[in-house]
Amino acid sequence: MARFTSRQSAKRGLPPGTAVHIGERKVERTRITVITFSETAFNEREAASADELPSLPAADAPGRGVTWINVDGVHDVALLEAIGSKYGLHPLSLEDIANTGQRPKLEEYDGYLYLVARMITPADAAGAIASEQISFVLARGLVLTFQETVGDVFDPIRQRIRTAKGRIRKMGADYLAYSLLDAIVDHYFVVLERVGESLQLLEDQVVLRPAPQMLQRIHRQKRNMVTLRRSVWPLREVVNSLERGESALIAKPTRLFLRDVYDHTIQVVDTVETYRDVIAGLLDIYLSSVSNRMNQVMKTLTIIATIFMPLTFLAGVYGMNFQYMPETRWHYGYFIALGVMTVLGVLMFLAFRRKRWL
Amino acid sequence: MARFTSRQSAKRGLPPGTAVHIGERKVERTRITVITFSETAFNEREAASADELPSLPAADAPGRGVTWINVDGVHDVALLEAIGSKYGLHPLSLEDIANTGQRPKLEEYDGYLYLVARMITPADAAGAIASEQISFVLARGLVLTFQETVGDVFDPIRQRIRTAKGRIRKMGADYLAYSLLDAIVDHYFVVLERVGESLQLLEDQVVLRPAPQMLQRIHRQKRNMVTLRRSVWPLREVVNSLERGESALIAKPTRLFLRDVYDHTIQVVDTVETYRDVIAGLLDIYLSSVSNRMNQVMKTLTIIATIFMPLTFLAGVYGMNFQYMPETRWHYGYFIALGVMTVLGVLMFLAFRRKRWL
Amino acid sequence: MARFTSRQSAKRGLPPGTAVHIGERKVERTRITVITFSETAFNEREAASADELPSLPAADAPGRGVTWINVDGVHDVALLEAIGSKYGLHPLSLEDIANTGQRPKLEEYDGYLYLVARMITPADAAGAIASEQISFVLARGLVLTFQETVGDVFDPIRQRIRTAKGRIRKMGADYLAYSLLDAIVDHYFVVLERVGESLQLLEDQVVLRPAPQMLQRIHRQKRNMVTLRRSVWPLREVVNSLERGESALIAKPTRLFLRDVYDHTIQVVDTVETYRDVIAGLLDIYLSSVSNRMNQVMKTLTIIATIFMPLTFLAGVYGMNFQYMPETRWHYGYFIALGVMTVLGVLMFLAFRRKRWL
Amino acid sequence: MARFTSRQSAKRGLPPGTAVHIGERKVERTRITVITFSETAFNEREAASADELPSLPAADAPGRGVTWINVDGVHDVALLEAIGSKYGLHPLSLEDIANTGQRPKLEEYDGYLYLVARMITPADAAGAIASEQISFVLARGLVLTFQETVGDVFDPIRQRIRTAKGRIRKMGADYLAYSLLDAIVDHYFVVLERVGESLQLLEDQVVLRPAPQMLQRIHRQKRNMVTLRRSVWPLREVVNSLERGESALIAKPTRLFLRDVYDHTIQVVDTVETYRDVIAGLLDIYLSSVSNRMNQVMKTLTIIATIFMPLTFLAGVYGMNFQYMPETRWHYGYFIALGVMTVLGVLMFLAFRRKRWL
Amino acid sequence: MARFTSRQSAKRGLPPGTAVHIGERKVERTRITVITFSETAFNEREAASADELPSLPAADAPGRGVTWINVDGVHDVALLEAIGSKYGLHPLSLEDIANTGQRPKLEEYDGYLYLVARMITPADAAGAIASEQISFVLARGLVLTFQETVGDVFDPIRQRIRTAKGRIRKMGADYLAYSLLDAIVDHYFVVLERVGESLQLLEDQVVLRPAPQMLQRIHRQKRNMVTLRRSVWPLREVVNSLERGESALIAKPTRLFLRDVYDHTIQVVDTVETYRDVIAGLLDIYLSSVSNRMNQVMKTLTIIATIFMPLTFLAGVYGMNFQYMPETRWHYGYFIALGVMTVLGVLMFLAFRRKRWL
Repeated sequence: MARFTSRQSAKRGLPPGTAVHIGERKVERTRITVITFSETAFNEREAASADELPSLPAADAPGRGVTWINVDGVHDVALLEAIGSKYGLHPLSLEDIANTGQRPKLEEYDGYLYLVARMITPADAAGAIASEQISFVLARGLVLTFQETVGDVFDPIRQRIRTAKGRIRKMGADYLAYSLLDAIVDHYFVVLERVGESLQLLEDQVVLRPAPQMLQRIHRQKRNMVTLRRSVWPLREVVNSLERGESALIAKPTRLFLRDVYDHTIQVVDTVETYRDVIAGLLDIYLSSVSNRMNQVMKTLTIIATIFMPLTFLAGVYGMNFQYMPETRWHYGYFIALGVMTVLGVLMFLAFRRKRWL
Repeated sequence: MARFTSRQSAKRGLPPGTAVHIGERKVERTRITVITFSETAFNEREAASADELPSLPAADAPGRGVTWINVDGVHDVALLEAIGSKYGLHPLSLEDIANTGQRPKLEEYDGYLYLVARMITPADAAGAIASEQISFVLARGLVLTFQETVGDVFDPIRQRIRTAKGRIRKMGADYLAYSLLDAIVDHYFVVLERVGESLQLLEDQVVLRPAPQMLQRIHRQKRNMVTLRRSVWPLREVVNSLERGESALIAKPTRLFLRDVYDHTIQVVDTVETYRDVIAGLLDIYLSSVSNRMNQVMKTLTIIATIFMPLTFLAGVYGMNFQYMPETRWHYGYFIALGVMTVLGVLMFLAFRRKRWL
Repeated sequence: MARFTSRQSAKRGLPPGTAVHIGERKVERTRITVITFSETAFNEREAASADELPSLPAADAPGRGVTWINVDGVHDVALLEAIGSKYGLHPLSLEDIANTGQRPKLEEYDGYLYLVARMITPADAAGAIASEQISFVLARGLVLTFQETVGDVFDPIRQRIRTAKGRIRKMGADYLAYSLLDAIVDHYFVVLERVGESLQLLEDQVVLRPAPQMLQRIHRQKRNMVTLRRSVWPLREVVNSLERGESALIAKPTRLFLRDVYDHTIQVVDTVETYRDVIAGLLDIYLSSVSNRMNQVMKTLTIIATIFMPLTFLAGVYGMNFQYMPETRWHYGYFIALGVMTVLGVLMFLAFRRKRWL
Repeated sequence: MARFTSRQSAKRGLPPGTAVHIGERKVERTRITVITFSETAFNEREAASADELPSLPAADAPGRGVTWINVDGVHDVALLEAIGSKYGLHPLSLEDIANTGQRPKLEEYDGYLYLVARMITPADAAGAIASEQISFVLARGLVLTFQETVGDVFDPIRQRIRTAKGRIRKMGADYLAYSLLDAIVDHYFVVLERVGESLQLLEDQVVLRPAPQMLQRIHRQKRNMVTLRRSVWPLREVVNSLERGESALIAKPTRLFLRDVYDHTIQVVDTVETYRDVIAGLLDIYLSSVSNRMNQVMKTLTIIATIFMPLTFLAGVYGMNFQYMPETRWHYGYFIALGVMTVLGVLMFLAFRRKRWL
Repeated sequence: MARFTSRQSAKRGLPPGTAVHIGERKVERTRITVITFSETAFNEREAASADELPSLPAADAPGRGVTWINVDGVHDVALLEAIGSKYGLHPLSLEDIANTGQRPKLEEYDGYLYLVARMITPADAAGAIASEQISFVLARGLVLTFQETVGDVFDPIRQRIRTAKGRIRKMGADYLAYSLLDAIVDHYFVVLERVGESLQLLEDQVVLRPAPQMLQRIHRQKRNMVTLRRSVWPLREVVNSLERGESALIAKPTRLFLRDVYDHTIQVVDTVETYRDVIAGLLDIYLSSVSNRMNQVMKTLTIIATIFMPLTFLAGVYGMNFQYMPETRWHYGYFIALGVMTVLGVLMFLAFRRKRWL
């Protein structure tokens, strides 16, 4: 649970705009990949430091193409600051990039848009879903992406750029940013499907054989849904603002595509809400199964007690030591007593059957 | 439950606007029906491929009438793309047509409106309601509809067109689209009535004889309501946007009719909400019936124990083997003991009756 | 429950604007009452058919007064269509008049306003509240009202018109429509008071002696509240639109009065919400009373068992048949044993008293 | 509960604008107090009838000051109508003054504002909070207040006017109205503090010794919160409209003070919401305490049964009358049996202790 | 709980704008610290009374810098009034400063902004979180802060001013106010982390060994969340209004920083909401653990009873004193009986194992 707070307190007392890495350090060293492409050209390389990053051509340079710089790992604050000063990023953006507990948001700065999305990662062994912060900077002809760890969710996009498949080489930086966002949102569906499957499994088990540890699994899924909502609800707003916003950085044709991503985020939200209902139903079924078993236990007890208490009483009566107890002297007294007890027991049994307790 | 996610992950990594069929393949082969009509003319035929589809007359051609192309089955992506290129559909529309997990929505593209509705189908044997995606494309003089499977919900409309009954032959493509939407919404009432009947049945059973499997039926109905809400809530917004939108494709007289459909969707929403309340009430009654039965069980146990424990104790006392126990030597000791036990038992019984436990 | 759906499916496949009576047929034959009045004149008569209905004078005829046509019974579709064609009603209005499952709404058509309200009728023998659809058509100098059944809620208005009491004869058709709406809303208070009384009664019973059938009565009241909300929430919006709308058919002085009706609908809504809280509280009290009784039962069982099990064990010990059991040979052994048992029993009893179980 | 409906039905069928007293008659006779003051002058007297009320000076009369007429008791409808006709009140305002079931509201009429607030009175012996309607009429230089009963909540204001303390003598009728409203809102805090104290008390009791009657006290407090919300939520809106409204009757400096009252109403709302949470928590704790006691009961039963059932069985075995039972012939058989039983009992006891049931 | 109301009633009947200290008196004597700084100059001193406070230079004085006056302790009303009259504060602001039960709010007065925030303090020994009111007055070149007690949350800001670290010396009073707000909001994270840790601890305990006092701890945390929400929800609105407001006192560059604070408040709100979910889950788990233990108890009881009741009955049968009971005369009768009882017991045991009760 402590993970919910993400150690913001480390920043306490520092001047605003101080980039401090907050969050788990997830990679050994930061990796910077630079891809530049235009409809006809393509170049891909790694950069060891901020100095090796390309300078941006003048805004009106012909055929200037698109530059995409992807940074894996955000713990190296000095590097972030060097990148920030190279491309004119505001200190507050750098602070947010380094502080990985941001919720998805879109902020407009002079000359660029800063956007935070959260990518979710499938449930770990304990069944918990985590989320990772991905920051975007979208400027004219430039997309910067910052990931906490080396991921493969952007690989299909890289592949499409390399092979010039689809529209991506013909369109601008805004379309690239859209494609990356789309990849992140598509990844939600993958994780949701797995969740759906494990809910299905859980449901079968809960109905068949409720056990206390299932309650904990149900609650883990409930928290997963909270994590997902916290990631996707604000993302929906972000995409909506991008689509409807007035930023000149987003061209009109790209807006149509953003509308499509917006649609997908709504589908994710819908699915999450549905799962929440399903989980609430699982909880009901679990509790009801437990109470049903309890009922069975109590019925068993009652049936046993109701049958044997009167019989034991009868046996006790004939175990009394009165000197004059006529029945005890009858030759068949014992067998008559046994017979009476048997009849009594059978009658009880039939009564329970009629009441449908058996 | 896995059905909730509809396999969006199949699309992961593909360029946007790539039409990929997502969903269950519900028909053997795609069937295309072409109906063209004007106030005086009428023609109906099947088309084997996109090539056989009619070209649209120029916008100002006199008496050009309305063309309605209905496609049953959306798994043939190549066909969809052929239709799309014939009538100038945007790749994103085609993607949505093929991907049958859309929620109802209305999107305006250059020259046409793209609309998704979901038709619900009555509960299957297991009592689950499903929904099917129906896509509409409304252009000048043209309505395209895409269904997942061959359905009969549009048959009355076809019949009305054939027999020139009602306004439908005199009005334009927007009125045709309205009529089709209206048919879909009317179908909700049919399904809701069946749900209402099975809720009525369920309620009677829950009150009379609660059983654990009823809980599962209650939950199935709860999920059905979720499915219905997911289908009809956004549809309501879609119809509202159509009515109040500024698209030139919707003529003013048609808007009055759309207001009527809007009204019907609100009635559906209302009924769904009412059913949700009813289902929540059923759950309460079920749980309370169960706990009531438990109460009965416990009372029985307590009564039996309270009556027989003291009696058994008494019998035990006179079963002790002390050498000097005066009562055991009395001639009528045994009968006195039996009498005392009987009186004690009857008193207990009367006490329970006064406490209304019997 | 089936009543919630109101058989909309009967209309499936019919062209829109087809008036079909949907709902229970509540009167033997339709009755049409025509009242025409101005500040000085008054006329009241019954009309046997649409032909006998008065034609409307030209809009600028001097002293033209107000015509109020009330129709009791809406199953005679042919009659409705005759009336519709006489006064120029749109087919969709006629459809809504005949289809008695409408929710309250206000629709503006060319030349008239169409308004639906729902009048509630007090709980029947089973304690269920029903609602009846009342349609209004308000045109210049004309009010048409359509009721499902012959009711007396409008009688005071008729009386006021006859006796020229109050403002009603001096003002226009809009004021008449307002007065009728006001009468309907006032009727809600009557029904709500009865509900309040029966809730009071129910509360007393639930506290004193909870019984399973009370749960069903509580749920019936809960559903009644749902019925009321469905009737009055949208009515509130209708009255608000009337008051703030821009229709020229509503004169400014009448708007002040409509604000008053609006206020009353809010009071009804408030009361309904309060009753919902009260009913939720009743449910809590019922469940808690039941569990309290269960507690009593279990305590009784435990006390009995805890007192008599050790005693029975003691008796059992001295009932053992060992040859050498010194106590059994003591002369007062039996009485000592009885004494020990008594003391043990009393100590147990006191222990329970200290724990406040008794 | 019947009090929630406030007998609106008494008005059924009457023409609108008919003032009818609805509500409990709380005072013997109506008392009218007239206070006129300006910065320099002050006059206070009682009026026996409407005739003795002062006429308002012309709007531009110099030094005209402020007239405050307070009416205690609203059942004398004739008097209300006389006052109404003297100061030009609309019949609908008079109707609302006499009908004491209004919710707080602000209505603008020609020449005056009509405002309803509800003053709450501390819990009675049964712990129920009631509310009383106070109507305000604010015209140029005139404030009319109508209370259901003679109250002391306005006394500090009277005192301030008499002693010319604070701003009140220097400012206009709007400031007077503000001061009165402020006094009403401040009174909420007094009542809320008492509620807070009795909640504190209740909490201590619920934790220590839960009893069924506490549940009813909790529910009474819950309803009190409902009463408070119904009084203060709309009041908040009223004050907000006063502050932001465009009425010329409210001078700009007074608006700053109204913002302060608005703030106080928000604090009241906040406190009420907090108390609702507290009450919900009390309910949880109550239910959990009850179930905890049940647990204790069941554990006691189980421990007793588990210890004594096997022992009793053992004793029963040696109570059997078989002729050949070798142990019974051993000289120390009895003591060995007793020893075994003791050891068994102690082992059971230790097992329970290890399971922490003891 | 009484703390929720904060003794507003002390003010009852006083004229508005009368500053009365409401709340606990938390410091011995009021301490006033005055810091004046500009980019180049810095001065820090304590003031003993309002007379020693600096007068503000004229608005257009060159290099006038920023004056920050911090007042610890708000019970000295005379001092507050002296400060108020020195810097032209409205009586209503002074009233709010002294009355420490305000919710966060922003009010614009002539020439200054008045802002209330609440700082939370970590949970005390009993686990309860408290909040303290901090009032800000922001005028041109002047920031006044009023705290209830001497705190250290502003120390890092003081340090930054002293050492001229960061932007703070270069920017105006608005930036100073922003920095102080930021420090308050950052402090929320510190407290939230501690809450997170104690929730983690609580969860572990609830799962392992549920005890009634945990319920109270859970409820204490629930109330803490209420306290936090009441502090941070309105603060969020305050910051938002500051950022988007049109006050000339907030310069454009500062608005970017305020957007950042706004973001942090949203994160706090998010975390609080998440914790509420976690707490609700804890409650579920607690209740379910308790009922699970109950189940164990009942199973134990039932197993014991079901095994020993039939056996005791059998022993009772052979303890009967009939003269003719053939089995009792068999030489091995006793051992056969014991054998039968053993077999019966083992069979029962196996039956329970098959039902998974053991």
